[in-house]
Amino acid sequence: MNIDMIRAAAGRIQGHANRTPLLSSPFLDDIAGRRVFVKAEALQKTGSFKFRGAWSAVSALKNAGGVIAFSSGNHAQGVALAAKAHGLPAVIIMPSDAPAMKIENTRALGAEVVLYDRANESRETIGEALAAERDLHLIRPFDDSHVIAGQGTTGLEIAQQAAEQGVTEGDVLVCCGGGGLTAGIATALEADAPGLRVRPVEPDGFDDVTRSLASGGWENNNQATGSICDAILTPSPGQLTFPIMQRLCGPGIVVPDEDCLRAMALAWSRLKVVLEPGGAISLAAALFHGDQIEGEAVIAVASGGNVDQPMFEKALTEYGQ
Amino acid sequence: MNIDMIRAAAGRIQGHANRTPLLSSPFLDDIAGRRVFVKAEALQKTGSFKFRGAWSAVSALKNAGGVIAFSSGNHAQGVALAAKAHGLPAVIIMPSDAPAMKIENTRALGAEVVLYDRANESRETIGEALAAERDLHLIRPFDDSHVIAGQGTTGLEIAQQAAEQGVTEGDVLVCCGGGGLTAGIATALEADAPGLRVRPVEPDGFDDVTRSLASGGWENNNQATGSICDAILTPSPGQLTFPIMQRLCGPGIVVPDEDCLRAMALAWSRLKVVLEPGGAISLAAALFHGDQIEGEAVIAVASGGNVDQPMFEKALTEYGQ
Repeated sequence: MNIDMIRAAAGRIQGHANRTPLLSSPFLDDIAGRRVFVKAEALQKTGSFKFRGAWSAVSALKNAGGVIAFSSGNHAQGVALAAKAHGLPAVIIMPSDAPAMKIENTRALGAEVVLYDRANESRETIGEALAAERDLHLIRPFDDSHVIAGQGTTGLEIAQQAAEQGVTEGDVLVCCGGGGLTAGIATALEADAPGLRVRPVEPDGFDDVTRSLASGGWENNNQATGSICDAILTPSPGQLTFPIMQRLCGPGIVVPDEDCLRAMALAWSRLKVVLEPGGAISLAAALFHGDQIEGEAVIAVASGGNVDQPMFEKALTEYGQ
Repeated sequence: MNIDMIRAAAGRIQGHANRTPLLSSPFLDDIAGRRVFVKAEALQKTGSFKFRGAWSAVSALKNAGGVIAFSSGNHAQGVALAAKAHGLPAVIIMPSDAPAMKIENTRALGAEVVLYDRANESRETIGEALAAERDLHLIRPFDDSHVIAGQGTTGLEIAQQAAEQGVTEGDVLVCCGGGGLTAGIATALEADAPGLRVRPVEPDGFDDVTRSLASGGWENNNQATGSICDAILTPSPGQLTFPIMQRLCGPGIVVPDEDCLRAMALAWSRLKVVLEPGGAISLAAALFHGDQIEGEAVIAVASGGNVDQPMFEKALTEYGQ
């Protein structure tokens, strides 16, 4: 994965993915004590940046009978829509206890959803059998060069949009699960905006990347669930993404769940953007953990907005007007 | 007001106003039975397109000790922020019974708020005295050429963004109060995308523009209040805007309030954008009144997102998931 792959991916997604805006509000600047810019990837097609990587990977396929992915969330919807647009069948393996709406949305985007029982079945075994039988190409959520390159197109846009605002130095905060978005953006900024430094942001208790960057090796989370930031609870950094993050990223930032809810309420009132908890975590870091950030301006990547209504209402009720 | 003024305004707002995205969702296409594109002006600075016109007018001033505006809503915030950025004092005349949050926000954006008693005082008298005393320039919400030109920059962007999506023919639905946004967009599209036709959209019972276009003269609404679309309840079409609308617009579309709430819930779930009722009315027309629209694609301008929390929660509760 390198900058040339990101530029090639940018060519392939042009006119298909949205060029999301870099938003700001004087009210957020006041809270943070510095200028805050928000790259609003919740406004991407299917409601998260995952569509970029999915389109990048699907559009790079030479010969395949279709695609397959394991996901209960944002990657599923990105792959489903990208495959549909390319006229390819998509199979998404989802746990049978996934939220009904996510299953329904993935089906509505044209994918065949295969449900499995988390307790008694292996999604890998099911997936491998289906892939072999039907000539399906597996699209991994982050350990795939074309996927990382697709997420990196976000970084090309940030470099250009930040320069238009006169920002060429400072921290770029990125919501971090497996590290596909983080590694992709870091690679793009190294080339196009070397004064901007990526900082991964993770939920309290799920700080595998932060600890891995500190120790120099792959660290694991101690638990698999227990944060509202469902989209970014990956057990450990990716095989492809971690070496890139190690080379290019500054220290990670760890944020408690309640700050994500506060950031969701402020994104609603001040930016008019709907964020999910994991998609709001970098904005939360910018607003409430500024002591760990350097520079007179900060850029927060708001990565997704696929939130259930009760969780969104909780954010407004507890931290709204 | 003409296309040259709009292009000049575009030059002045560049780097200051957001270039808002043209969003879409396959789920909205399914509801409408045609492709739906949403120009998301709720993502504009201060949460509505009004910032464009305010910046256009303030930046065109040659000599003034400051600016003054009458408004309890979106125009107030746009003028306040534009004036602050130009280092000019701003006085906003607001009714003393305006929502506390709107008064607070306008003050927080640096404006001096002068409250008046709707029942016993005339805002015009207060405003004229202040303007003369302090050399303040009055910025009208829609009957001002520079304001209309600023709103028209939305149309330049629509022409370009629609062409990128292969859309060069069809209806462009615009939320319509006094007609500044409608007239501005129509003038821009006449020049840059003549196959796109503007259609004003108004709330049921406040269809002064629709009836004026039908009768050929200025018609008035019978009431001043009674719709949740507070931002677009203007008594009659503007003096400058109506002749432009008459020359360029197709017939108006009238939408009941409950459809605006439904559209707000869908903008939340499918586009991740926060809309206020009046800002959602053109999307409501696109989704639920398609029998009055022509073409295989439709563009809806979602003009603002400054909604109070109880109204937003009502939309989600009644029409959400």
